[in-house]
Amino acid sequence: MVKPKRRQSKTEAAAFASTTGPAIILVRPQLGENIGTAARAMLNCGLMDLRLVAPRDGWPNVKALNAASGADAVIGQARLFESVADAVADLNSVFASTARGREMVKSVFTPRQAAAKLRPASATHAGILFGPERSGLSNDDVVLADAIIEVPLNPAFSSLNLAQAVLIICYEWSVAAQETVPEYLPVGRSPVARKKEILNFFNMLEGELDARDFYPTTVMRPKMVSNLRNLFQRIELSQQDVKSLFGIVKSLTRPPLNKFPEEK
Amino acid sequence: MVKPKRRQSKTEAAAFASTTGPAIILVRPQLGENIGTAARAMLNCGLMDLRLVAPRDGWPNVKALNAASGADAVIGQARLFESVADAVADLNSVFASTARGREMVKSVFTPRQAAAKLRPASATHAGILFGPERSGLSNDDVVLADAIIEVPLNPAFSSLNLAQAVLIICYEWSVAAQETVPEYLPVGRSPVARKKEILNFFNMLEGELDARDFYPTTVMRPKMVSNLRNLFQRIELSQQDVKSLFGIVKSLTRPPLNKFPEEK
Repeated sequence: MVKPKRRQSKTEAAAFASTTGPAIILVRPQLGENIGTAARAMLNCGLMDLRLVAPRDGWPNVKALNAASGADAVIGQARLFESVADAVADLNSVFASTARGREMVKSVFTPRQAAAKLRPASATHAGILFGPERSGLSNDDVVLADAIIEVPLNPAFSSLNLAQAVLIICYEWSVAAQETVPEYLPVGRSPVARKKEILNFFNMLEGELDARDFYPTTVMRPKMVSNLRNLFQRIELSQQDVKSLFGIVKSLTRPPLNKFPEEK
Repeated sequence: MVKPKRRQSKTEAAAFASTTGPAIILVRPQLGENIGTAARAMLNCGLMDLRLVAPRDGWPNVKALNAASGADAVIGQARLFESVADAVADLNSVFASTARGREMVKSVFTPRQAAAKLRPASATHAGILFGPERSGLSNDDVVLADAIIEVPLNPAFSSLNLAQAVLIICYEWSVAAQETVPEYLPVGRSPVARKKEILNFFNMLEGELDARDFYPTTVMRPKMVSNLRNLFQRIELSQQDVKSLFGIVKSLTRPPLNKFPEEK
Protein backbone atom coordinates (compact mmCIF):
# COMPACT_ATOMS: atom_id res chain seq x y z
CA MET A 1 0.00 0.00 0.00
CA VAL A 2 2.72 2.45 0.88
CA LYS A 3 5.59 3.06 -1.53
CA PRO A 4 9.24 2.96 -0.46
CA LYS A 5 10.91 6.24 0.40
CA ARG A 6 14.70 6.33 0.55
CA ARG A 7 14.74 2.55 0.86
CA GLN A 8 12.59 2.53 3.98
CA SER A 9 8.89 2.12 3.91
CA LYS A 10 6.69 4.64 5.60
CA THR A 11 5.53 1.84 7.79
CA GLU A 12 9.06 1.42 9.08
CA ALA A 13 9.46 5.16 9.56
CA ALA A 14 6.29 5.21 11.56
CA ALA A 15 7.24 2.05 13.44
CA PHE A 16 10.42 3.78 14.69
CA ALA A 17 8.28 6.63 15.87
CA SER A 18 7.27 6.84 19.44
CA THR A 19 3.92 5.90 20.78
CA THR A 20 4.76 7.56 24.07
CA GLY A 21 6.25 10.84 22.82
CA PRO A 22 4.38 14.08 23.28
CA ALA A 23 1.44 15.06 21.10
CA ILE A 24 2.02 18.09 18.87
CA ILE A 25 -1.06 20.28 18.97
CA LEU A 26 -1.41 22.98 16.31
CA VAL A 27 -3.96 25.52 17.47
CA ARG A 28 -5.89 27.28 14.67
CA PRO A 29 -3.08 26.80 12.12
CA GLN A 30 -3.51 28.96 9.03
CA LEU A 31 -1.38 27.48 6.25
CA GLY A 32 -1.61 23.89 5.07
CA GLU A 33 2.07 24.06 4.09
CA ASN A 34 3.02 24.69 7.69
CA ILE A 35 0.95 21.76 8.93
CA GLY A 36 2.68 19.52 6.40
CA THR A 37 6.15 20.79 7.23
CA ALA A 38 5.42 20.37 10.92
CA ALA A 39 4.32 16.77 10.28
CA ARG A 40 7.55 16.11 8.41
CA ALA A 41 9.58 17.57 11.30
CA MET A 42 7.67 15.39 13.75
CA LEU A 43 8.43 12.18 11.86
CA ASN A 44 12.06 13.31 11.44
CA CYS A 45 12.19 13.29 15.21
CA GLY A 46 10.16 10.12 15.72
CA LEU A 47 6.85 11.67 16.78
CA MET A 48 3.45 10.61 15.41
CA ASP A 49 0.65 12.16 17.44
CA LEU A 50 -0.47 15.28 15.54
CA ARG A 51 -3.59 17.10 16.72
CA LEU A 52 -5.23 20.02 14.97
CA VAL A 53 -7.53 22.50 16.65
CA ALA A 54 -9.82 24.27 14.16
CA PRO A 55 -7.45 24.62 11.21
CA ARG A 56 -8.40 27.69 9.19
CA ASP A 57 -8.71 25.92 5.83
CA GLY A 58 -10.49 22.82 7.11
CA TRP A 59 -9.27 19.24 7.10
CA PRO A 60 -8.05 17.24 5.21
CA ASN A 61 -5.83 19.69 3.35
CA VAL A 62 -3.99 18.81 0.13
CA LYS A 63 -1.29 21.43 0.70
CA ALA A 64 -0.52 19.85 4.04
CA LEU A 65 -0.16 16.43 2.48
CA ASN A 66 2.15 17.75 -0.25
CA ALA A 67 4.35 19.64 2.19
CA ALA A 68 4.67 16.59 4.42
CA SER A 69 7.10 15.10 1.86
CA GLY A 70 6.36 11.53 2.76
CA ALA A 71 5.28 11.90 6.37
CA ASP A 72 1.88 10.72 5.20
CA ALA A 73 1.31 8.52 8.21
CA VAL A 74 1.46 11.53 10.52
CA ILE A 75 -0.95 13.48 8.33
CA GLY A 76 -3.22 10.46 7.91
CA GLN A 77 -3.50 9.85 11.63
CA ALA A 78 -3.89 13.52 12.59
CA ARG A 79 -6.91 14.14 14.79
CA LEU A 80 -9.18 17.13 14.56
CA PHE A 81 -10.56 18.96 17.61
CA GLU A 82 -12.88 21.90 18.04
CA SER A 83 -11.18 23.37 21.07
CA VAL A 84 -7.86 23.26 22.86
CA ALA A 85 -9.63 21.88 25.90
CA ASP A 86 -10.84 18.91 23.82
CA ALA A 87 -7.42 18.38 22.29
CA VAL A 88 -5.66 18.12 25.63
CA ALA A 89 -8.40 16.21 27.44
CA ASP A 90 -6.61 12.82 27.54
CA LEU A 91 -3.16 14.23 28.33
CA ASN A 92 -1.41 14.34 31.68
CA SER A 93 0.77 17.37 31.09
CA VAL A 94 0.71 20.22 28.60
CA PHE A 95 3.36 22.72 27.54
CA ALA A 96 2.65 25.89 25.56
CA SER A 97 5.23 27.04 23.01
CA THR A 98 5.31 30.81 22.92
CA ALA A 99 7.78 33.55 22.04
CA ARG A 100 6.21 36.32 24.06
CA GLY A 101 6.53 36.81 27.77
CA ARG A 102 3.22 36.22 29.50
CA GLU A 103 1.70 37.87 32.50
CA MET A 104 1.21 34.47 34.03
CA VAL A 105 2.68 32.58 36.90
CA LYS A 106 3.98 29.60 34.98
CA SER A 107 7.31 27.92 34.76
CA VAL A 108 9.22 28.79 31.59
CA PHE A 109 11.51 26.15 30.12
CA THR A 110 13.87 26.06 27.19
CA PRO A 111 13.18 23.26 24.69
CA ARG A 112 16.12 21.35 26.17
CA GLN A 113 14.78 21.62 29.70
CA ALA A 114 11.33 20.63 28.53
CA ALA A 115 12.78 17.63 26.69
CA ALA A 116 14.45 16.45 29.88
CA LYS A 117 11.11 16.63 31.63
CA LEU A 118 9.26 14.87 28.82
CA ARG A 119 11.85 12.20 28.35
CA PRO A 120 11.80 9.73 31.25
CA ALA A 121 10.19 6.42 30.39
CA SER A 122 7.87 7.08 33.28
CA ALA A 123 6.76 10.34 31.69
CA THR A 124 3.06 10.69 31.50
CA HIS A 125 1.34 11.44 28.23
CA ALA A 126 2.21 14.99 27.36
CA GLY A 127 1.30 17.50 24.66
CA ILE A 128 2.78 20.73 23.33
CA LEU A 129 0.62 23.59 22.07
CA PHE A 130 1.65 25.79 19.14
CA GLY A 131 -0.34 28.88 18.18
CA PRO A 132 -1.48 30.29 14.83
CA GLU A 133 1.24 31.72 12.55
CA ARG A 134 0.17 35.33 12.83
CA SER A 135 -0.71 35.80 16.47
CA GLY A 136 0.59 32.85 18.44
CA LEU A 137 -1.35 31.28 21.29
CA SER A 138 -3.98 33.36 23.04
CA ASN A 139 -3.81 33.76 26.79
CA ASP A 140 -6.84 31.46 27.06
CA ASP A 141 -4.87 28.76 25.29
CA VAL A 142 -1.81 29.24 27.45
CA VAL A 143 -3.87 29.02 30.62
CA LEU A 144 -4.59 25.39 29.74
CA ALA A 145 -0.89 24.55 29.85
CA ASP A 146 1.17 23.55 32.87
CA ALA A 147 4.28 25.33 31.72
CA ILE A 148 5.69 27.43 28.89
CA ILE A 149 8.42 26.57 26.42
CA GLU A 150 10.40 29.47 25.03
CA VAL A 151 13.05 28.91 22.38
CA PRO A 152 16.09 31.02 23.29
CA LEU A 153 16.88 33.05 20.19
CA ASN A 154 18.13 36.42 18.97
CA PRO A 155 15.99 38.67 21.23
CA ALA A 156 15.74 41.19 18.42
CA PHE A 157 14.47 38.64 15.87
CA SER A 158 12.83 35.84 17.76
CA SER A 159 9.73 35.11 15.69
CA LEU A 160 10.01 31.55 14.42
CA ASN A 161 8.04 30.07 11.60
CA LEU A 162 5.48 27.58 13.00
CA ALA A 163 7.13 24.51 11.51
CA GLN A 164 10.56 25.72 12.67
CA ALA A 165 9.29 26.01 16.25
CA VAL A 166 7.80 22.51 16.04
CA LEU A 167 11.10 21.20 14.67
CA ILE A 168 13.29 22.65 17.42
CA ILE A 169 11.11 21.30 20.20
CA CYS A 170 10.72 17.85 18.58
CA TYR A 171 14.46 17.80 17.83
CA GLU A 172 15.35 18.43 21.46
CA TRP A 173 12.96 15.67 22.50
CA SER A 174 14.60 13.32 19.99
CA VAL A 175 18.17 14.19 20.99
CA ALA A 176 17.34 13.66 24.65
CA ALA A 177 16.50 10.09 23.62
CA GLN A 178 19.98 9.50 22.27
CA GLU A 179 22.11 10.31 25.26
CA THR A 180 24.83 7.94 24.15
CA VAL A 181 25.87 9.41 20.81
CA PRO A 182 29.50 8.50 20.25
CA GLU A 183 31.91 11.43 20.06
CA TYR A 184 32.94 10.89 16.48
CA LEU A 185 32.82 8.06 14.02
CA PRO A 186 35.48 8.19 11.38
CA VAL A 187 34.10 6.40 8.36
CA GLY A 188 35.93 3.57 6.64
CA ARG A 189 39.25 4.00 8.43
CA SER A 190 42.18 1.70 8.01
CA PRO A 191 43.68 0.69 11.39
CA VAL A 192 45.63 3.34 13.26
CA ALA A 193 49.31 3.27 12.38
CA ARG A 194 51.82 1.82 14.80
CA LYS A 195 54.36 4.21 16.18
CA LYS A 196 57.21 2.38 14.48
CA GLU A 197 55.57 2.88 11.10
CA ILE A 198 55.27 6.57 11.80
CA LEU A 199 58.85 6.81 13.01
CA ASN A 200 60.04 5.05 9.86
CA PHE A 201 58.23 7.65 7.84
CA PHE A 202 59.75 10.50 9.86
CA ASN A 203 63.23 9.07 9.43
CA MET A 204 62.79 8.69 5.71
CA LEU A 205 61.35 12.19 5.29
CA GLU A 206 63.99 13.82 7.46
CA GLY A 207 66.72 11.97 5.59
CA GLU A 208 65.45 13.25 2.27
CA LEU A 209 65.26 16.77 3.67
CA ASP A 210 68.80 16.50 5.07
CA ALA A 211 70.00 15.39 1.66
CA ARG A 212 68.61 18.65 0.28
CA ASP A 213 69.87 21.03 2.99
CA PHE A 214 66.29 21.80 4.04
CA TYR A 215 67.31 23.17 7.43
CA PRO A 216 68.78 26.68 7.27
CA THR A 217 71.15 26.01 10.19
CA THR A 218 72.03 22.97 12.27
CA VAL A 219 70.90 24.90 15.33
CA MET A 220 67.40 25.19 13.91
CA ARG A 221 67.18 21.57 12.85
CA PRO A 222 65.93 20.00 16.13
CA LYS A 223 63.15 22.56 16.52
CA MET A 224 62.07 22.18 12.92
CA VAL A 225 62.11 18.40 13.13
CA SER A 226 60.00 18.50 16.26
CA ASN A 227 57.47 20.89 14.67
CA LEU A 228 57.24 18.64 11.67
CA ARG A 229 56.69 15.52 13.74
CA ASN A 230 54.07 17.28 15.83
CA LEU A 231 52.28 18.38 12.70
CA PHE A 232 51.91 14.84 11.38
CA GLN A 233 51.16 13.35 14.76
CA ARG A 234 48.14 15.58 15.18
CA ILE A 235 46.51 13.63 12.35
CA GLU A 236 46.23 10.27 14.07
CA LEU A 237 47.51 8.58 10.96
CA SER A 238 46.13 5.27 9.80
CA GLN A 239 48.38 2.58 8.36
CA GLN A 240 47.06 3.46 4.92
CA ASP A 241 47.84 7.14 5.53
CA VAL A 242 51.45 6.31 6.34
CA LYS A 243 51.73 4.26 3.16
CA SER A 244 50.31 7.18 1.18
CA LEU A 245 52.78 9.59 2.75
CA PHE A 246 55.66 7.26 1.95
CA GLY A 247 54.45 7.12 -1.64
CA ILE A 248 54.16 10.87 -1.88
CA VAL A 249 57.62 11.59 -0.56
CA LYS A 250 59.15 8.92 -2.78
CA SER A 251 57.35 10.36 -5.77
CA LEU A 252 58.38 13.92 -4.97
CA THR A 253 62.03 12.99 -4.68
CA ARG A 254 62.05 11.65 -8.21
CA PRO A 255 62.78 14.12 -11.00
CA PRO A 256 59.77 15.26 -12.98
CA LEU A 257 59.08 13.34 -16.14
CA ASN A 258 59.56 16.40 -18.36
CA LYS A 259 56.80 15.31 -20.64
CA PHE A 260 56.72 18.84 -21.92
CA PRO A 261 60.35 19.91 -21.91
CA GLU A 262 59.55 22.92 -24.05
CA GLU A 263 57.74 24.50 -21.10
CA LYS A 264 60.06 26.77 -19.22
CA MET B 1 21.44 47.61 24.88
CA VAL B 2 18.90 45.34 23.25
CA LYS B 3 15.39 46.74 23.04
CA PRO B 4 12.19 44.96 24.04
CA LYS B 5 10.98 42.18 21.81
CA ARG B 6 8.86 42.45 18.68
CA ARG B 7 9.30 46.17 18.09
CA GLN B 8 12.85 46.27 16.92
CA SER B 9 14.11 47.61 13.69
CA LYS B 10 15.86 45.32 11.29
CA THR B 11 19.07 47.22 12.00
CA GLU B 12 18.89 46.30 15.65
CA ALA B 13 18.18 42.67 14.85
CA ALA B 14 21.27 42.62 12.71
CA ALA B 15 23.33 44.47 15.33
CA PHE B 16 22.69 41.68 17.83
CA ALA B 17 23.87 39.19 15.30
CA SER B 18 27.34 37.82 15.47
CA THR B 19 30.21 39.00 13.37
CA THR B 20 32.24 36.00 14.42
CA GLY B 21 29.70 33.22 13.99
CA PRO B 22 30.03 30.68 11.22
CA ALA B 23 29.17 31.44 7.63
CA ILE B 24 26.21 29.51 6.24
CA ILE B 25 27.06 28.37 2.72
CA LEU B 26 24.21 27.13 0.54
CA VAL B 27 25.64 25.14 -2.34
CA ARG B 28 23.59 25.25 -5.56
CA PRO B 29 20.30 25.90 -3.71
CA GLN B 30 17.24 25.34 -5.88
CA LEU B 31 14.31 27.17 -4.30
CA GLY B 32 14.31 30.85 -3.41
CA GLU B 33 11.83 30.10 -0.62
CA ASN B 34 14.38 27.87 1.06
CA ILE B 35 17.10 30.49 0.82
CA GLY B 36 14.76 33.00 2.46
CA THR B 37 13.66 30.63 5.20
CA ALA B 38 17.28 29.72 5.85
CA ALA B 39 18.14 33.44 6.15
CA ARG B 40 15.32 33.89 8.65
CA ALA B 41 16.56 30.92 10.68
CA MET B 42 20.07 32.37 10.64
CA LEU B 43 18.95 35.74 12.01
CA ASN B 44 16.76 33.95 14.58
CA CYS B 45 19.99 32.44 15.84
CA GLY B 46 22.10 35.57 15.50
CA LEU B 47 24.02 34.68 12.34
CA MET B 48 24.55 37.04 9.41
CA ASP B 49 27.12 35.63 6.99
CA LEU B 50 25.12 33.95 4.19
CA ARG B 51 27.01 32.71 1.14
CA LEU B 52 25.45 31.29 -2.00
CA VAL B 53 27.25 29.09 -4.48
CA ALA B 54 25.60 29.14 -7.91
CA PRO B 55 21.93 29.35 -6.86
CA ARG B 56 19.79 27.69 -9.54
CA ASP B 57 17.50 30.67 -10.15
CA GLY B 58 20.16 33.37 -10.03
CA TRP B 59 20.54 36.17 -7.55
CA PRO B 60 18.91 38.36 -6.25
CA ASN B 61 15.72 36.34 -5.90
CA VAL B 62 12.38 37.90 -4.97
CA LYS B 63 11.04 34.66 -3.50
CA ALA B 64 14.01 34.49 -1.17
CA LEU B 65 13.38 38.02 0.06
CA ASN B 66 9.69 37.33 0.66
CA ALA B 67 10.36 34.11 2.54
CA ALA B 68 12.97 35.81 4.72
CA SER B 69 10.09 37.46 6.65
CA GLY B 70 12.13 40.44 7.73
CA ALA B 71 15.60 38.98 7.74
CA ASP B 72 16.34 41.43 4.93
CA ALA B 73 19.78 42.30 6.23
CA VAL B 74 20.92 38.70 5.84
CA ILE B 75 19.55 38.50 2.30
CA GLY B 76 20.93 41.93 1.44
CA GLN B 77 24.44 41.04 2.57
CA ALA B 78 24.47 37.56 1.06
CA ARG B 79 27.49 36.97 -1.11
CA LEU B 80 27.51 35.05 -4.36
CA PHE B 81 30.28 32.63 -5.37
CA GLU B 82 30.92 30.50 -8.42
CA SER B 83 32.45 27.56 -6.61
CA VAL B 84 32.60 26.06 -3.16
CA ALA B 85 36.37 26.57 -3.17
CA ASP B 86 35.83 30.32 -3.67
CA ALA B 87 33.17 30.46 -0.98
CA VAL B 88 35.41 28.89 1.67
CA ALA B 89 38.65 30.59 0.62
CA ASP B 90 38.85 33.00 3.58
CA LEU B 91 37.63 30.52 6.21
CA ASN B 92 39.74 28.56 8.68
CA SER B 93 37.48 25.60 9.20
CA VAL B 94 34.64 24.12 7.22
CA PHE B 95 31.93 21.64 8.18
CA ALA B 96 29.70 19.83 5.70
CA SER B 97 26.10 19.13 6.67
CA THR B 98 25.05 15.83 5.18
CA ALA B 99 22.54 13.11 5.90
CA ARG B 100 24.28 10.31 4.05
CA GLY B 101 27.24 8.33 5.30
CA ARG B 102 30.32 9.01 3.19
CA GLU B 103 33.18 6.81 2.23
CA MET B 104 35.58 9.37 3.59
CA VAL B 105 37.88 9.57 6.52
CA LYS B 106 36.37 12.56 8.25
CA SER B 107 35.13 13.14 11.75
CA VAL B 108 31.36 13.14 12.05
CA PHE B 109 29.78 15.42 14.64
CA THR B 110 26.27 16.02 15.81
CA PRO B 111 25.14 19.65 15.59
CA ARG B 112 25.68 19.95 19.34
CA GLN B 113 29.23 18.65 19.16
CA ALA B 114 29.95 20.91 16.20
CA ALA B 115 28.53 23.89 18.08
CA ALA B 116 30.87 23.21 20.98
CA LYS B 117 33.79 23.25 18.57
CA LEU B 118 32.61 26.41 16.83
CA ARG B 119 31.85 28.27 19.99
CA PRO B 120 35.02 29.23 21.86
CA ALA B 121 35.83 32.92 21.72
CA SER B 122 39.12 31.82 20.22
CA ALA B 123 37.30 30.00 17.44
CA THR B 124 38.57 30.78 14.03
CA HIS B 125 36.31 31.81 11.18
CA ALA B 126 34.24 28.80 10.25
CA GLY B 127 31.68 27.92 7.62
CA ILE B 128 29.05 25.22 7.18
CA LEU B 129 28.16 23.79 3.79
CA PHE B 130 24.60 22.74 2.90
CA GLY B 131 23.84 20.95 -0.36
CA PRO B 132 21.04 21.33 -2.91
CA GLU B 133 17.55 20.25 -1.84
CA ARG B 134 17.31 17.27 -4.14
CA SER B 135 20.73 15.69 -3.99
CA GLY B 136 22.65 17.15 -1.07
CA LEU B 137 26.37 17.89 -1.24
CA SER B 138 28.48 16.07 -3.80
CA ASN B 139 31.57 14.20 -2.68
CA ASP B 140 33.71 16.93 -4.26
CA ASP B 141 32.00 19.48 -2.02
CA VAL B 142 32.44 17.34 1.08
CA VAL B 143 36.14 16.85 0.38
CA LEU B 144 36.64 20.60 0.95
CA ALA B 145 35.33 20.28 4.51
CA ASP B 146 37.28 19.40 7.63
CA ALA B 147 34.46 17.43 9.22
CA ILE B 148 30.89 16.32 8.71
CA ILE B 149 27.80 17.33 10.66
CA GLU B 150 25.00 14.79 10.79
CA VAL B 151 21.73 15.62 12.52
CA PRO B 152 20.70 12.58 14.58
CA LEU B 153 17.13 11.83 13.53
CA ASN B 154 14.64 9.05 12.92
CA PRO B 155 16.86 6.72 10.86
CA ALA B 156 13.85 5.68 8.80
CA PHE B 157 12.88 9.27 7.94
CA SER B 158 15.96 11.44 8.21
CA SER B 159 15.67 13.72 5.18
CA LEU B 160 15.41 17.28 6.48
CA ASN B 161 14.19 20.25 4.48
CA LEU B 162 17.15 22.55 3.67
CA ALA B 163 15.98 25.41 5.88
CA GLN B 164 15.22 22.97 8.72
CA ALA B 165 18.77 21.64 8.56
CA VAL B 166 20.13 25.19 8.62
CA LEU B 167 17.90 25.98 11.59
CA ILE B 168 18.98 23.05 13.73
CA ILE B 169 22.66 23.72 13.23
CA CYS B 170 22.31 27.49 13.77
CA TYR B 171 20.11 26.84 16.80
CA GLU B 172 22.70 24.62 18.43
CA TRP B 173 25.33 27.27 17.76
CA SER B 174 23.11 29.89 19.35
CA VAL B 175 22.32 27.78 22.41
CA ALA B 176 26.00 27.02 22.88
CA ALA B 177 26.57 30.79 22.90
CA GLN B 178 24.60 31.00 26.08
CA GLU B 179 26.93 28.60 27.84
CA THR B 180 30.29 30.04 26.79
CA VAL B 181 32.79 27.66 28.23
CA PRO B 182 36.17 28.41 26.76
CA GLU B 183 37.81 25.35 25.25
CA TYR B 184 41.49 24.72 25.64
CA LEU B 185 43.76 27.13 23.85
CA PRO B 186 46.68 25.46 22.17
CA VAL B 187 49.80 27.26 23.33
CA GLY B 188 52.08 29.08 20.94
CA ARG B 189 50.15 28.16 17.81
CA SER B 190 50.43 30.26 14.73
CA PRO B 191 46.95 31.33 13.48
CA VAL B 192 44.88 28.68 11.78
CA ALA B 193 45.45 28.62 8.04
CA ARG B 194 42.89 30.02 5.67
CA LYS B 195 41.32 27.64 3.20
CA LYS B 196 42.88 29.37 0.23
CA GLU B 197 46.34 28.81 1.68
CA ILE B 198 45.55 25.14 2.13
CA LEU B 199 44.05 24.87 -1.35
CA ASN B 200 47.16 26.50 -2.80
CA PHE B 201 49.24 23.87 -1.06
CA PHE B 202 47.05 21.06 -2.37
CA ASN B 203 47.27 22.42 -5.89
CA MET B 204 51.03 22.70 -5.71
CA LEU B 205 51.45 19.22 -4.22
CA GLU B 206 49.07 17.62 -6.69
CA GLY B 207 50.83 19.39 -9.55
CA GLU B 208 54.19 18.03 -8.47
CA LEU B 209 52.71 14.55 -8.13
CA ASP B 210 51.12 14.81 -11.56
CA ALA B 211 54.47 15.82 -13.00
CA ARG B 212 55.85 12.55 -11.63
CA ASP B 213 53.02 10.21 -12.67
CA PHE B 214 52.20 9.51 -9.03
CA TYR B 215 48.75 8.18 -9.81
CA PRO B 216 48.75 4.62 -11.16
CA THR B 217 45.73 5.33 -13.37
CA THR B 218 43.66 8.40 -14.18
CA VAL B 219 40.64 6.54 -12.83
CA MET B 220 42.27 6.28 -9.43
CA ARG B 221 43.39 9.90 -9.33
CA PRO B 222 40.20 11.54 -7.95
CA LYS B 223 39.93 9.06 -5.09
CA MET B 224 43.60 9.40 -4.26
CA VAL B 225 43.46 13.19 -4.37
CA SER B 226 40.43 13.16 -2.12
CA ASN B 227 42.13 10.82 0.38
CA LEU B 228 45.20 13.02 0.39
CA ARG B 229 43.21 16.20 0.99
CA ASN B 230 41.22 14.54 3.73
CA LEU B 231 44.42 13.39 5.39
CA PHE B 232 45.86 16.89 5.64
CA GLN B 233 42.54 18.49 6.57
CA ARG B 234 42.25 16.34 9.66
CA ILE B 235 45.18 18.28 11.15
CA GLU B 236 43.74 21.78 11.47
CA LEU B 237 46.84 23.26 9.91
CA SER B 238 48.24 26.57 11.13
CA GLN B 239 49.57 29.15 8.71
CA GLN B 240 53.05 28.18 9.81
CA ASP B 241 52.28 24.51 9.15
CA VAL B 242 51.23 25.31 5.60
CA LYS B 243 54.47 27.25 5.09
CA SER B 244 56.42 24.29 6.41
CA LEU B 245 54.61 21.88 4.11
CA PHE B 246 55.30 24.15 1.14
CA GLY B 247 58.95 24.21 2.13
CA ILE B 248 59.10 20.45 2.49
CA VAL B 249 57.54 19.72 -0.88
CA LYS B 250 59.74 22.31 -2.58
CA SER B 251 62.77 20.85 -0.96
CA LEU B 252 61.83 17.29 -1.86
CA THR B 253 61.33 18.18 -5.50
CA ARG B 254 64.90 19.43 -5.76
CA PRO B 255 67.61 16.89 -6.58
CA PRO B 256 69.75 15.77 -3.65
CA LEU B 257 73.00 17.69 -3.16
CA ASN B 258 75.23 14.66 -3.57
CA LYS B 259 77.75 16.05 -1.12
CA PHE B 260 79.30 12.67 -0.88
CA PRO B 261 79.00 11.28 -4.37
CA GLU B 262 81.42 8.51 -3.56
CA GLU B 263 78.84 6.95 -1.26
CA LYS B 264 76.80 4.42 -3.06
